[in-house]
Amino acid sequence: MSKPLNIGMIGYGFMGRAHSNGYRRVSNFFNLEYTPVLKAACARDAAKARAFADQWGYESIETDWRKLLERKDIDAVDICVPNNLHKEIAIAAAKAGKMILCEKPLAMDSAEGEEMCQAVEKAGVANIVWYNYRRIPAVTFAKQLIDSGKLGKIFHYRANFLQDWTINADVPQGGQGTWRLDAAAAGSGVTGDLLAHCIDTALWLNGSISNVTAMTETFVKQRKHSLTGKVEKVGIDDACAFLCHFQNGSLGLFESTRYARGHKALYTFEINGEHASIKWDLHDLHRLQWFDHKTEGPLRAWSSIHVTDGEHPYMSKWWVPGLAIGYEHSFVHQVADFLEGLATGKPAGPTFRDALETQQVCDAVLASAKSGAWTGVG
Amino acid sequence: MSKPLNIGMIGYGFMGRAHSNGYRRVSNFFNLEYTPVLKAACARDAAKARAFADQWGYESIETDWRKLLERKDIDAVDICVPNNLHKEIAIAAAKAGKMILCEKPLAMDSAEGEEMCQAVEKAGVANIVWYNYRRIPAVTFAKQLIDSGKLGKIFHYRANFLQDWTINADVPQGGQGTWRLDAAAAGSGVTGDLLAHCIDTALWLNGSISNVTAMTETFVKQRKHSLTGKVEKVGIDDACAFLCHFQNGSLGLFESTRYARGHKALYTFEINGEHASIKWDLHDLHRLQWFDHKTEGPLRAWSSIHVTDGEHPYMSKWWVPGLAIGYEHSFVHQVADFLEGLATGKPAGPTFRDALETQQVCDAVLASAKSGAWTGVG
Amino acid sequence: MSKPLNIGMIGYGFMGRAHSNGYRRVSNFFNLEYTPVLKAACARDAAKARAFADQWGYESIETDWRKLLERKDIDAVDICVPNNLHKEIAIAAAKAGKMILCEKPLAMDSAEGEEMCQAVEKAGVANIVWYNYRRIPAVTFAKQLIDSGKLGKIFHYRANFLQDWTINADVPQGGQGTWRLDAAAAGSGVTGDLLAHCIDTALWLNGSISNVTAMTETFVKQRKHSLTGKVEKVGIDDACAFLCHFQNGSLGLFESTRYARGHKALYTFEINGEHASIKWDLHDLHRLQWFDHKTEGPLRAWSSIHVTDGEHPYMSKWWVPGLAIGYEHSFVHQVADFLEGLATGKPAGPTFRDALETQQVCDAVLASAKSGAWTGVG
Amino acid sequence: MSKPLNIGMIGYGFMGRAHSNGYRRVSNFFNLEYTPVLKAACARDAAKARAFADQWGYESIETDWRKLLERKDIDAVDICVPNNLHKEIAIAAAKAGKMILCEKPLAMDSAEGEEMCQAVEKAGVANIVWYNYRRIPAVTFAKQLIDSGKLGKIFHYRANFLQDWTINADVPQGGQGTWRLDAAAAGSGVTGDLLAHCIDTALWLNGSISNVTAMTETFVKQRKHSLTGKVEKVGIDDACAFLCHFQNGSLGLFESTRYARGHKALYTFEINGEHASIKWDLHDLHRLQWFDHKTEGPLRAWSSIHVTDGEHPYMSKWWVPGLAIGYEHSFVHQVADFLEGLATGKPAGPTFRDALETQQVCDAVLASAKSGAWTGVG
Repeated sequence: MSKPLNIGMIGYGFMGRAHSNGYRRVSNFFNLEYTPVLKAACARDAAKARAFADQWGYESIETDWRKLLERKDIDAVDICVPNNLHKEIAIAAAKAGKMILCEKPLAMDSAEGEEMCQAVEKAGVANIVWYNYRRIPAVTFAKQLIDSGKLGKIFHYRANFLQDWTINADVPQGGQGTWRLDAAAAGSGVTGDLLAHCIDTALWLNGSISNVTAMTETFVKQRKHSLTGKVEKVGIDDACAFLCHFQNGSLGLFESTRYARGHKALYTFEINGEHASIKWDLHDLHRLQWFDHKTEGPLRAWSSIHVTDGEHPYMSKWWVPGLAIGYEHSFVHQVADFLEGLATGKPAGPTFRDALETQQVCDAVLASAKSGAWTGVG
Repeated sequence: MSKPLNIGMIGYGFMGRAHSNGYRRVSNFFNLEYTPVLKAACARDAAKARAFADQWGYESIETDWRKLLERKDIDAVDICVPNNLHKEIAIAAAKAGKMILCEKPLAMDSAEGEEMCQAVEKAGVANIVWYNYRRIPAVTFAKQLIDSGKLGKIFHYRANFLQDWTINADVPQGGQGTWRLDAAAAGSGVTGDLLAHCIDTALWLNGSISNVTAMTETFVKQRKHSLTGKVEKVGIDDACAFLCHFQNGSLGLFESTRYARGHKALYTFEINGEHASIKWDLHDLHRLQWFDHKTEGPLRAWSSIHVTDGEHPYMSKWWVPGLAIGYEHSFVHQVADFLEGLATGKPAGPTFRDALETQQVCDAVLASAKSGAWTGVG
Repeated sequence: MSKPLNIGMIGYGFMGRAHSNGYRRVSNFFNLEYTPVLKAACARDAAKARAFADQWGYESIETDWRKLLERKDIDAVDICVPNNLHKEIAIAAAKAGKMILCEKPLAMDSAEGEEMCQAVEKAGVANIVWYNYRRIPAVTFAKQLIDSGKLGKIFHYRANFLQDWTINADVPQGGQGTWRLDAAAAGSGVTGDLLAHCIDTALWLNGSISNVTAMTETFVKQRKHSLTGKVEKVGIDDACAFLCHFQNGSLGLFESTRYARGHKALYTFEINGEHASIKWDLHDLHRLQWFDHKTEGPLRAWSSIHVTDGEHPYMSKWWVPGLAIGYEHSFVHQVADFLEGLATGKPAGPTFRDALETQQVCDAVLASAKSGAWTGVG
Repeated sequence: MSKPLNIGMIGYGFMGRAHSNGYRRVSNFFNLEYTPVLKAACARDAAKARAFADQWGYESIETDWRKLLERKDIDAVDICVPNNLHKEIAIAAAKAGKMILCEKPLAMDSAEGEEMCQAVEKAGVANIVWYNYRRIPAVTFAKQLIDSGKLGKIFHYRANFLQDWTINADVPQGGQGTWRLDAAAAGSGVTGDLLAHCIDTALWLNGSISNVTAMTETFVKQRKHSLTGKVEKVGIDDACAFLCHFQNGSLGLFESTRYARGHKALYTFEINGEHASIKWDLHDLHRLQWFDHKTEGPLRAWSSIHVTDGEHPYMSKWWVPGLAIGYEHSFVHQVADFLEGLATGKPAGPTFRDALETQQVCDAVLASAKSGAWTGVG
């Protein structure tokens, strides 16, 4: 019999829904030692907490996250609030002995992140950060291919994350739905929001980054602030790009922006190795592009693997070959792996400590963009 | 407050899972007057029924579908068993006053289908058939575009459904997982299994079919039967293709096979109208290919619409633009529409009567393949 | 030293240009025993013949093809006139001992074609028909893959040729540029113009066709005739589709139309074999889609071969890997192969006799479309 | 009547062929005031000069380019030799009053380039550099779309040129076919060879670049030198990437490498504007990807324009809609535009002066890669 794992959810936005769906569905498809139980939903506004709890089947609500942390019937808390609140909640949760599943990026900067790491490590509580793209089956399959040695020595890694939703200067900053444009709540703009995903995947697939040179840009200099009602200076980066060296000798190019007309959420990466190359993009997330130089000469070509077979990561749990799953399943997989990590004692990543390295790269990128100089990581 | 709708599920196979998932998830994403409740799972083998019920959260089990139909606490039954059992169960369910959600194809042939239609119509029970592809958002969007008149007069409709899983002559016929190769259980081969999907969509998008000329083939003539253990003649069609005239004057080409190496579940259709054309395929189900002749000359082109915006059918219920959903969501949508049909009194299709027309086309196709002559439908 | 081969060109339209370009360029890229010399251009209208000769560098002009055939300095004639004139010119050319390069389709029907075959065979003159698509490198490569046995037993062959240039009812029939809509000049519509290409490739790649069932349609029933100035009944088929059995046991589906909005010249084919499958389309003619079931399980996928490497057919003659050639090169290749056939004594196909088989399939298709019955070929 | 323009070709390698083909074909397809005449081919090795002249129909040969420049019957010289020889020949040609068509990059560095510009400007001779990709119809069409204002304010420009032919450490440096790996002959590696193409197109489409930060890498540190027979240090850059600011406020990312396994000659660019975006790649050079935000909401999508219509740049000269041309046609177009420039007095670009700006960006890139600092251009 599967054991319950009682979840307390803090937040109710887009990510609150995505994580809740992950908890609710995992047991229908994965047979695991633990079963998540949606115990409590927490939000400052009781009506919103109630509505969210009703929609998703949380058994109770709280309006103060400190109360939630005091509850004995909560095993794990999920932190789904703006970035500037992560540190305080996470450290308190660790002290309260709760497992923590924290939305990315880990913190406002790596100094905060380091405090959080020390807190969970001192408390000895299970911890993970929601860099969900690692668990899109095609991305996980890419990891397997790289680990198998099929690519050989890596020469190049390039990634970008392109959106276009803030081109209109009338989009406000701050408040619900637009806190990501408010430096006070988000810390940075596309760097922490989008590049952080690209960096997490890159560190996982290709190892550590040594140094970076970066540029950032804020195309729209002022926007109305939803909370103050006034037009205020925009403090975040609208676009950020950097060049880097990985420790394995490969070269990296990264870019993210919210000004790439035509791209809703186009996260792409490509890795070129001595023997083989890989490409992936989020708009066709069920496919992995693959080139193997060992193929017989005239048949050498990029192939588009439809990652829906039982042999592919996670896919035996779902439907039959040819039938695609979507974005939300990456969260189900993260829940499954987190629960399996609890059962086996081998924690699933990215842990807080793993996510701290992503934060350090982000810090170096923002510092380089300011100074104009190549900047070391960490 | 949402009212419960108690579901009794008959069957526990691939479709049993897909439908159960539809019932379980609909209320997290759609706000409807009715909420499905997984009341009972029914299978002849009690252990299998129990395991399935545990996995999906059914409250109880039955091992005799007649018992299930007698239960007062069941509002609707879902028929997820091989085709040869549809008629008996559906007619009994109708007599018992249960709503019916029946897996496709409706029946073994249109004579059976006609009896089933009369039964549900006489009983006045809500009824629907699981031709789920209508509710892939890109397909629903195609329907909206056609209905808007943007395509103008239709000249051509072509569709195929290509698989490759029976090329190996060692695949048996009959029994669980392979009953689709057994004529006694399935009625026909790819015609009822795959072409039926293509035909349902075509009738919905392009209206009725007048007449057909068809060919079928059975490439592997004998296979071991899982139930008898003996090598027996294969009675189903491995491949089937037909030409047809639609009542609107357009020409149709349809093909399905399980011998198209490289295609797992490639359902595709294309419609060519006077002003615009549409293409879709199941392997990239979140995209709709669109060509509009009214576009300014040199910019005229096929575009690949990423059907993930809030404006697209069903998509406002899910995530944000750019983030794809998958195959299974078509079943969630069908549940949502069925429930909304109950609330509004405008039944969602395809009803049994709608599905009967698909059956009539299948009958004409099989008859033409036998006679070699053009054959009228219905 | 290369020997001259003196060409007399009859016609000056689109195909006259394509063939002339083939003759002019072949010697820059291929080192062959023969070099084509553009000796004479022939057209009834002297001014047009002169303009064409000047544009392409023909040394002289003629206004009567009979005169051209009498000239001693002409080794080969190229017949680039409407279909209804092929027979008379070809038979006279054979009698005059000229080699013949005849535009496709060979003739108005197979009775005419048979006479033409007998004429060239009796005269012993080299002969070839311009089914140029065989010599797109990707198509030739497909032939090599099939001949290598990599596909194994063939189950399915499907092809179509889709255009949209006659949807507008104001396009006239008859006269220059539109004689293909005039049954008197063209014999048939899309069957001889487009399907003939599909059939030629199919016979070459997959062997003979046994029998067919077909349908044709004329969407626009009347069009103004350019020569008479009157609105007249349209005698050609606007669309034609057929099902067939190949002698090797595989099933075929063919379709062509000039009413497929959005497709300029989309010739596509797909072949599904036991072990591998191939797809190609003319809109991306430099690519061949390839699926090999022998690939390691999770890496199995369709690949898109960029047919531009030195190992690919004809490509070592052109540029470097990655740099594509286009449509017109298929004609250069046909000239090269024709000249090499002269040198080696192994005639390049399709000869008149090869092209007659295509004509016989076209005849069977048109007969079946009329009768509604399955019709044998030849 | 068209006037002859006598060409003297210096060099006989890959580019010698591509340019010769341009001269030979232009008059069959374009009706121009001037017709190129292949007057003389020049190479130090008489046998090679003779073979090349025979293949391409040059009337005579020379073995000393100085002799060629002295000939009265030569109007224009084409410089198709390694980069280190461009300056001396070009300056002498200018002094001899010859028009000059010079292979790219213009020179070894911008100091050399400046001298060359002054020479041609002083002499008043027509001059052009073979940045041929401007004249791929899809690229020219991109220019038209940008100039029309359809994109609005530009936010992002990204381009890369990826190859994989030097991954094998056994590829030598120096000598015929591999002089591009020899710093003494080529000046730089991928920066001058590949990035220069990307930069030329970018300056043409998006205006001047202000400053850059760059990194270069030489993966294989030593290679055998073909001329000395010894293993020598490799002086060129195998890979180069840079970030930049354009003067119009947009951000640029550029990358080139010969270590991107799976890419033969993948030159790609993408431009994101306020209202629309464009993408192109050389592997499918006949297509332009286009996204227009002004399209009706749910139909908004990237479209893939098949740039083969008569309305598209240059295409009315070739075949019919749907039939693609290839790489080599860009050179035919450059010849056509150069000749038209002579006739109209409006010189076609890129002139030496235009190409000098590309050289200045390359110099800044190489300087930044060395210093690690942001570096201004020019």
